[in-house]
Amino acid sequence: MMESDDQVVDHRTSDRGMGSLKPNEFEPVLIDLLGDILPKADKLPVICCGMVGARQGWVEAPYAACPCEPSATDQAVTFEAAEGRLAIHILPGVKQIAPPDVMRGEETQIAGLLAEAPGFEGAVCLPGTHSKWAKIANGRIETFRTFMTGELFALLSNQSILRHSLGGDGFDEAAFAQAVTDALEDPAAVTGEFFAIRAATLLNDHAAGAGRARLSGLLIGAELVAAHSFWQESETVIIGESALAKAYREALTIAGAAVRTVPGDELTLAGLTAAYRNLKR
Amino acid sequence: MMESDDQVVDHRTSDRGMGSLKPNEFEPVLIDLLGDILPKADKLPVICCGMVGARQGWVEAPYAACPCEPSATDQAVTFEAAEGRLAIHILPGVKQIAPPDVMRGEETQIAGLLAEAPGFEGAVCLPGTHSKWAKIANGRIETFRTFMTGELFALLSNQSILRHSLGGDGFDEAAFAQAVTDALEDPAAVTGEFFAIRAATLLNDHAAGAGRARLSGLLIGAELVAAHSFWQESETVIIGESALAKAYREALTIAGAAVRTVPGDELTLAGLTAAYRNLKR
Repeated sequence: MMESDDQVVDHRTSDRGMGSLKPNEFEPVLIDLLGDILPKADKLPVICCGMVGARQGWVEAPYAACPCEPSATDQAVTFEAAEGRLAIHILPGVKQIAPPDVMRGEETQIAGLLAEAPGFEGAVCLPGTHSKWAKIANGRIETFRTFMTGELFALLSNQSILRHSLGGDGFDEAAFAQAVTDALEDPAAVTGEFFAIRAATLLNDHAAGAGRARLSGLLIGAELVAAHSFWQESETVIIGESALAKAYREALTIAGAAVRTVPGDELTLAGLTAAYRNLKR
Repeated sequence: MMESDDQVVDHRTSDRGMGSLKPNEFEPVLIDLLGDILPKADKLPVICCGMVGARQGWVEAPYAACPCEPSATDQAVTFEAAEGRLAIHILPGVKQIAPPDVMRGEETQIAGLLAEAPGFEGAVCLPGTHSKWAKIANGRIETFRTFMTGELFALLSNQSILRHSLGGDGFDEAAFAQAVTDALEDPAAVTGEFFAIRAATLLNDHAAGAGRARLSGLLIGAELVAAHSFWQESETVIIGESALAKAYREALTIAGAAVRTVPGDELTLAGLTAAYRNLKR
């Protein structure tokens, strides 16, 4: 909830997101979340980004075709809700035809980065379940790529045979660094290193924290090699301050990249604010 | 059940394997399976290989240290069961210290291959949930390596975001071949290609069979690059005739390897027979 374009006057969160909602459930959940903020009559503008615009979301928003500005508000989907008391704007995602790729939500964080640092050129790395890399130039997303590294780590560590070798909460920083180095030196060998984590536990009673860190380092290291065209010749901004974002920062530093980290929530807000201003024009 | 060392007189199977049994359940399950074959008094020799000798199996058998002959019967664990009517021999697995690796069961198929083709030298590929590659020379396993390719495929196709893009039973041979070629040419890029399968479905309504085949081809192709030292300079024998074994054969042929396929069940029997003869000595 913002006033005068950029003053946050209220802030509410909910875990009732796209993954657990049917299309007709978004409106009541939003009304419930707004509660006393819901105006009596005025059309309160609501700017939305992310999976809310997916095919299985509230209302499907299109994808702007990359290369493009990250906030393609001219392609936003606009409709009324709550009997006219809300004016909903769902921002488009971004698609890329070759290689095929899509994003929803990350483009708004990138728009926020450009709003805060106009003229930024370089790489943006957004760690997550599906990490995204984007190349930014001339105020546009020139190209981007998605890696399933986070999801692969979760599947391998929780559901594969490796789960027996990765228990516990420890995280061995040295093992992580060594694994990143190994993957950078020989990325093609990485798929052969997974089972070795299991075998090492069977043969040597390795600490589980070392196995977890090694798996993470191998996967992130392999991603860095595949994404090298993004970070190799320009500065990389990592969006987010999670433990995962810190691991990416560490891995990129090992790879010799120039890295900077910025908080993600603030950029989302800045991106939504910029979109709102565009929509008002 | 065999007589005169190499005549099969009966054959029984059960799905009650190591994964679902506690150590004290192996004996009653075996007695139940044998039924009328269980002798009244004689010590019937029972030769076992595989996960029955794992730490969570019936009785833990050691690992022979590689390089070694594939049938290290001098390290078998021997004990009586069924009140002395069965003489159980659990064959050892094989371990490798660097890089760390283990196998249980595959060594007996390799022993069977060497029993049927004494003097064989080259690579052995055993496709499966965890595929194994072994280099054979002088009647020994010189080195080996395990790849979690099959498990990765199962996890990615059934439980990751890709599951929405891989439904159906089709398998597009041309998409498989292209993916193998792509992985052989640029194995480091493979982790960036997974999400593209999902994005291609969202953007182009690709057939699910193409996505499944592409994922399989990318994973097997990446494994071949990591395992190139096994197949690049010698003949490769693929053990098994499953659909997966056929996919490995196709991929290896694309990579330019010299490949031959042999049935797996027959080799297991030949390996167990060879172990029995060794034990009798």
